[in-house]
Amino acid sequence: MAQGDQVAALRGGNVPVLARAISQVENRRAGFEALLSSIHPTLGHARRIGITGPPGAGKSTLTERLVQVLRAKGHTVAVVAVDPTSPFTGGALLGDRIRMESVALDPGVYIRSMATRGSLGGLATTTREVCDVLDAAGFDRILIETVGVGQSELDVGRSADTTVLVLVPESGDGIQTLKSGVMEIGDIFVVNKSDRPGADRLRQEIEITLGIRAGNAYRHVKAHHGLEKKQTGGTSATDGMTAGPPVRRSAESHWAHPVLGTVASKGEGVEVLADALDGHHQWLTETGELGARRRRRLFERTREVVDRAARQWIWHETAAEQMINDRLEDLAAGRTSPYEVAVEVLDGLKQGTRV
Amino acid sequence: MAQGDQVAALRGGNVPVLARAISQVENRRAGFEALLSSIHPTLGHARRIGITGPPGAGKSTLTERLVQVLRAKGHTVAVVAVDPTSPFTGGALLGDRIRMESVALDPGVYIRSMATRGSLGGLATTTREVCDVLDAAGFDRILIETVGVGQSELDVGRSADTTVLVLVPESGDGIQTLKSGVMEIGDIFVVNKSDRPGADRLRQEIEITLGIRAGNAYRHVKAHHGLEKKQTGGTSATDGMTAGPPVRRSAESHWAHPVLGTVASKGEGVEVLADALDGHHQWLTETGELGARRRRRLFERTREVVDRAARQWIWHETAAEQMINDRLEDLAAGRTSPYEVAVEVLDGLKQGTRV
Repeated sequence: MAQGDQVAALRGGNVPVLARAISQVENRRAGFEALLSSIHPTLGHARRIGITGPPGAGKSTLTERLVQVLRAKGHTVAVVAVDPTSPFTGGALLGDRIRMESVALDPGVYIRSMATRGSLGGLATTTREVCDVLDAAGFDRILIETVGVGQSELDVGRSADTTVLVLVPESGDGIQTLKSGVMEIGDIFVVNKSDRPGADRLRQEIEITLGIRAGNAYRHVKAHHGLEKKQTGGTSATDGMTAGPPVRRSAESHWAHPVLGTVASKGEGVEVLADALDGHHQWLTETGELGARRRRRLFERTREVVDRAARQWIWHETAAEQMINDRLEDLAAGRTSPYEVAVEVLDGLKQGTRV
Repeated sequence: MAQGDQVAALRGGNVPVLARAISQVENRRAGFEALLSSIHPTLGHARRIGITGPPGAGKSTLTERLVQVLRAKGHTVAVVAVDPTSPFTGGALLGDRIRMESVALDPGVYIRSMATRGSLGGLATTTREVCDVLDAAGFDRILIETVGVGQSELDVGRSADTTVLVLVPESGDGIQTLKSGVMEIGDIFVVNKSDRPGADRLRQEIEITLGIRAGNAYRHVKAHHGLEKKQTGGTSATDGMTAGPPVRRSAESHWAHPVLGTVASKGEGVEVLADALDGHHQWLTETGELGARRRRRLFERTREVVDRAARQWIWHETAAEQMINDRLEDLAAGRTSPYEVAVEVLDGLKQGTRV
């Protein structure tokens, strides 16, 4: 298929073309950069929402419920599930994809699992590029579900406009998370399984860590996101979100991070989460932060593409590899070091392509 | 301290100098490449042994016991424990370092934990460079303990001369591992906790996967590594290693992977493991494979240093960053794409440093 036809079919919602385009990008197959380059002007419609948290936090269930709520509002939804495959088990750490079945047959929903093992272009980069393809295909919302077991998974979260950090009361992860400096990636905090013991305490600890200490500030959070009008199912954790008087929406530029309670398995609190996502998008737009975040991502993306192109150039279009091979005996005998050889190679590159 | 003095003190076994040198390398502090370059001719004495496997396989306990056996043989031992810190808990996945206490006070033992979070130079690269420092300090054996939860942890294993893959019967990881293609990294297989149910079956499954199906081939394995003379403590898994008649050591170049049983918590089977390590080293030396592996590593290392130097050059010594910033509005407006800008930047680099 000619590239113009491919882009047209992609934008027209052709699912097989979409699936092939994603595989092309994931596997760095010929023409993938040309494809990404040609869809670039069409990007920006989709809201990219990261959903991350430790294993066992119920992210898959929460994601599925959120898809249902977003569909009920009339949005089309793509889900990118980043499974950090264990090299030992060959299995996914994220758990049971089968629960997504309630939405998998909906033509307004597209679900794609991405394996992290052997990701040719780096997990975070590839995920961002796959999201571009989904954005070009016209989806209103892209949910990026990723389990936080490594730095690369955290980097995935940074590709979203809004990041939801999901914690659960029982494991003690919550409190540890507060100490670990990972809090900064969350725009919205969710205490899932909030009908279990310790949910209130975890929510309070998150709020304390966020600096939301006083009752006024807490009410402000709810008002800020228009959450005070919602009823969420009556669990102890979500009850807290409905107390207190309505307050006018603040126009200030500071984002007051909501701390929500959900019971994803029962669907409780998920509509409040959807509203909080709308609230964050509104805040991003009104303050200009959305443009700023997207510019930062564009800068990072371009840097990554330059690094990739530079490696391609160095190792496939110059004599760098041959130069190392020529010095291998000297390296093995200790007559020179990798650092000295690297300086020689770099000097060659700096003087032009004739290394 | 002048660099010559630093290298002399390092080679003289000065522990504070060693600790500072490792920190310097780990944190990419000024002069770390000059240090690594100047110790390069002294490398090659230490045998580098990777010990890897899924969480809960008992690698720490096995490593501690192996240190005891190696010390009893008169070898000095360094342990590099690569802890893949969870960004969510801030804690190590490897488990209890405290069990190393039995050897931690031995002046012939040096234990160093490496955090994976925020590893500035990439985990595998940094681990290899830290092992260089330990090699230069004169340790006879370097044990690199790493839990296999991600590709980067597997890459760590590739920096060893010999890799021990540790599995346990109960978790089902074993069988899954056989399917996952991770087998190829193991030179020696250990079924730890082999006094538990399922150990024999797991060992058999590993042997079948390795293609050691017939009894003759199995005896050959033991003979090949001189294991037939050892008694290992009488667990069901290790009993299997002592059966069958002694066979003359094969001179063939194929390495027949031993599958050993251990009960690390009781020290059972650990001497057999130490012998298998000697056997593998002998095989590596006799076949020339040791030199070949080390040359491959030197090539890879030099490539990595070139990539690092190239990034340093591109982003700190050329106009590449400014060039992206100048095009940021065009990028945001969709008038150009990251891929087009990258081509422009690369063209500038190819024509010389004046981008």
